Amino acid sequence: MKEAISEQYINNLLTQMDISDISKATIRQCVAVADNLEKHIQEPFIHLEIGVPGFEPCSVGREAQKEAIDKGVSSIYPPIGGIPLLKENASKFIKAFIDIDIEPQGIIPTVGSMQGTYNLFLECSQLDPKKDTILFINPGFPANFTQVNVLGIKNESFDIYNYRAEKLKPKLEEYLSKGNIVAILYSNPNNPAWICLTEQELKDIGDCANKYDTIILEDLAYMCMDFRKELSKPYQPPYQSTVARYTDNYILLLSASKIFSYAGERIAVIAFSNKMYHREYPALRERYGLGKMGDNYILTYLYCASSGVSHSAQYALAKMYGDAAEGKLDFVATLKEYADRANKAKKIFEENGFNIVYNKDLDQILSDGFFFTIGYRDMGCKELLTNLLRCGITAITLNTTGSLQNGIRVCVSRIHTQEEFKELDNRLKIFRTITK
Amino acid sequence: MKEAISEQYINNLLTQMDISDISKATIRQCVAVADNLEKHIQEPFIHLEIGVPGFEPCSVGREAQKEAIDKGVSSIYPPIGGIPLLKENASKFIKAFIDIDIEPQGIIPTVGSMQGTYNLFLECSQLDPKKDTILFINPGFPANFTQVNVLGIKNESFDIYNYRAEKLKPKLEEYLSKGNIVAILYSNPNNPAWICLTEQELKDIGDCANKYDTIILEDLAYMCMDFRKELSKPYQPPYQSTVARYTDNYILLLSASKIFSYAGERIAVIAFSNKMYHREYPALRERYGLGKMGDNYILTYLYCASSGVSHSAQYALAKMYGDAAEGKLDFVATLKEYADRANKAKKIFEENGFNIVYNKDLDQILSDGFFFTIGYRDMGCKELLTNLLRCGITAITLNTTGSLQNGIRVCVSRIHTQEEFKELDNRLKIFRTITK
Repeated sequence: MKEAISEQYINNLLTQMDISDISKATIRQCVAVADNLEKHIQEPFIHLEIGVPGFEPCSVGREAQKEAIDKGVSSIYPPIGGIPLLKENASKFIKAFIDIDIEPQGIIPTVGSMQGTYNLFLECSQLDPKKDTILFINPGFPANFTQVNVLGIKNESFDIYNYRAEKLKPKLEEYLSKGNIVAILYSNPNNPAWICLTEQELKDIGDCANKYDTIILEDLAYMCMDFRKELSKPYQPPYQSTVARYTDNYILLLSASKIFSYAGERIAVIAFSNKMYHREYPALRERYGLGKMGDNYILTYLYCASSGVSHSAQYALAKMYGDAAEGKLDFVATLKEYADRANKAKKIFEENGFNIVYNKDLDQILSDGFFFTIGYRDMGCKELLTNLLRCGITAITLNTTGSLQNGIRVCVSRIHTQEEFKELDNRLKIFRTITK
Repeated sequence: MKEAISEQYINNLLTQMDISDISKATIRQCVAVADNLEKHIQEPFIHLEIGVPGFEPCSVGREAQKEAIDKGVSSIYPPIGGIPLLKENASKFIKAFIDIDIEPQGIIPTVGSMQGTYNLFLECSQLDPKKDTILFINPGFPANFTQVNVLGIKNESFDIYNYRAEKLKPKLEEYLSKGNIVAILYSNPNNPAWICLTEQELKDIGDCANKYDTIILEDLAYMCMDFRKELSKPYQPPYQSTVARYTDNYILLLSASKIFSYAGERIAVIAFSNKMYHREYPALRERYGLGKMGDNYILTYLYCASSGVSHSAQYALAKMYGDAAEGKLDFVATLKEYADRANKAKKIFEENGFNIVYNKDLDQILSDGFFFTIGYRDMGCKELLTNLLRCGITAITLNTTGSLQNGIRVCVSRIHTQEEFKELDNRLKIFRTITK
């Protein structure tokens, strides 16, 4: 790229695409904008917006899936609660890498973690008429906000930026003490900021969950990607951090999209703590004739949402979990490549005058990983993204993630060659000239 | 089987399984009851309850799916609106067998028709604040009632039994004239009754849709299974009947579960009429920043429900649609086997004093097919099912389908050998002795 796209061209395009404010666009809209601009400049964009897996799908999974297809599973409705092998292997995997004991019964496949959170929000909102609100610890995944909007579920949120360490617990209690919060969602490592909660922070969250009888929905889409620790060895410490060590009021969400690069088949599992799976709720019994949270998740919510998950993909995931737990599949090693890319990309941004927005876990420098966040001087989200688009770079703004900070989220899944990094540097130099 | 299970044993089991009224049990609960009773009598039950495909999954679909897996689609997020090949081939398939023109853009894969109706109910309920109610023409699929219950969507319904032919239109107008009905759902051929609406009835429904601006959701899960007609030849009349010939206010639901025996991979398509896809709704624009019904279905509802459908299964379905439309895959021929089974099973029931409940399309005898309905004298649903369970036969009662008639739904997908039909006869003889 030699020169920036004119501001007017971008503005016209956005008008034409029915996008009134680019800083409020969804990820999919940002992709579409970039597609259009690529045609205009006849050069590829640098895609930092969408988190697609950057690797080939895990091969043992593929082979297991094809084998299942050969055996004829395509004609048979999958058990909605999941095939036994998947439930058992997921339980082993969780023990091996998170060091938590969860009964296979409580581990349930979903059509991506997207379906997992969707139905958890819905079920949580129906557990108790007095507790009707979900609390998001932000920044977070914008689609989760769309989910509660689509379902009409009340929600509150705060940006954790100013509430790390000892400030977190009082902030949580400010919400929980009102009595209307049924569940709390956060991701760890965090999408988009890549912050990792400390053990003390997780303990504080767990303590709050116990004190206020709140359910913690812990999204582990990026588990074992805090590359500051050696998390790749099954059944050996250190383990993936989790709130599950501090409360029984938890449900974990484990996407297969990133850890096994299996996003295409739309499969994840959610794992109910043994306590939550069996917990009886009178409001559920009255509405559905079934009282237990886990039974309802399967027989009421998932049944009528999709009647389960691709039968063949369940065999793929079962195999990947099994092999990983047995130490035959080092999924973490593959993922370390993301850290290398993040490291390179961060340097290029910093050399061009950008700063990392969420930059520390208390006194520790953040891990390099799938995402990071950058800002430029005091430039607002909208201006920043518009200027980056003018320079052939697309991303999503931090305000769409519930963050109150100015900046954008950078995802490194689609940038990897020497040339791409060089071109990033080139385009950021153009950015500097047009924003002088 | 030599003698019936005691009534007390059944009652104890139901209590233990937390089922207070067997005639209100879901299909999955009926399966579970039968599983338990099978262990007790140490003999297999005759399963007439769940509609699982009775054949091997379509082989060209399997091969196409494996090929897609080999090409690496498992790591790549599927386009939420569907891969282009699927959309194009589905459009051809619909033209070939239904003789309706639908643009590929408006044909969207869903995780089974279950996800299709779920999100259509949700979207329809949000189109217009004045129209908040779904109307079911019953009998219908019980899971659809669960869906509106889960989502808290208002609904009304009537049993078509007494409203065929010229009585249908006034009955519909009774509801539609109130102004609160946004959409009407029915299946054709009908699950569970296997009635097929006549062209005049479909025209009356279409006229009502036009007059009252109502959306028709037409579930074609069993398309081309009215075996009284020769529906197997692509691009040749006669075609599958549809309301789409009489109104543009329609959305079709095409499950792949039964027509291609592909239930395991959880895939279907919904097809928006060209008009409905592009129709703009101010309430949608206000809530989601997007106004068109079709765009919202993809980018709002499906995006946050599951972010699309198994990428590899989309290639399978694309291939099956394509081959069927080109006349290379005669999917109807395979399905005729269901009619033979139904024919045999009906005879056995009738010889044992049962009657077909929904027995005619006006003056025409019903087609044989996947389902039929039977009653026994004036026996109520609960008593009938309890007595059948005592004789090693499981099914679902008509009252769970929104029917006001006494009887049960019989599905022939899991009964096919000579021995099984003989044993059905044997067990119905036991039924007669215990109900004398």
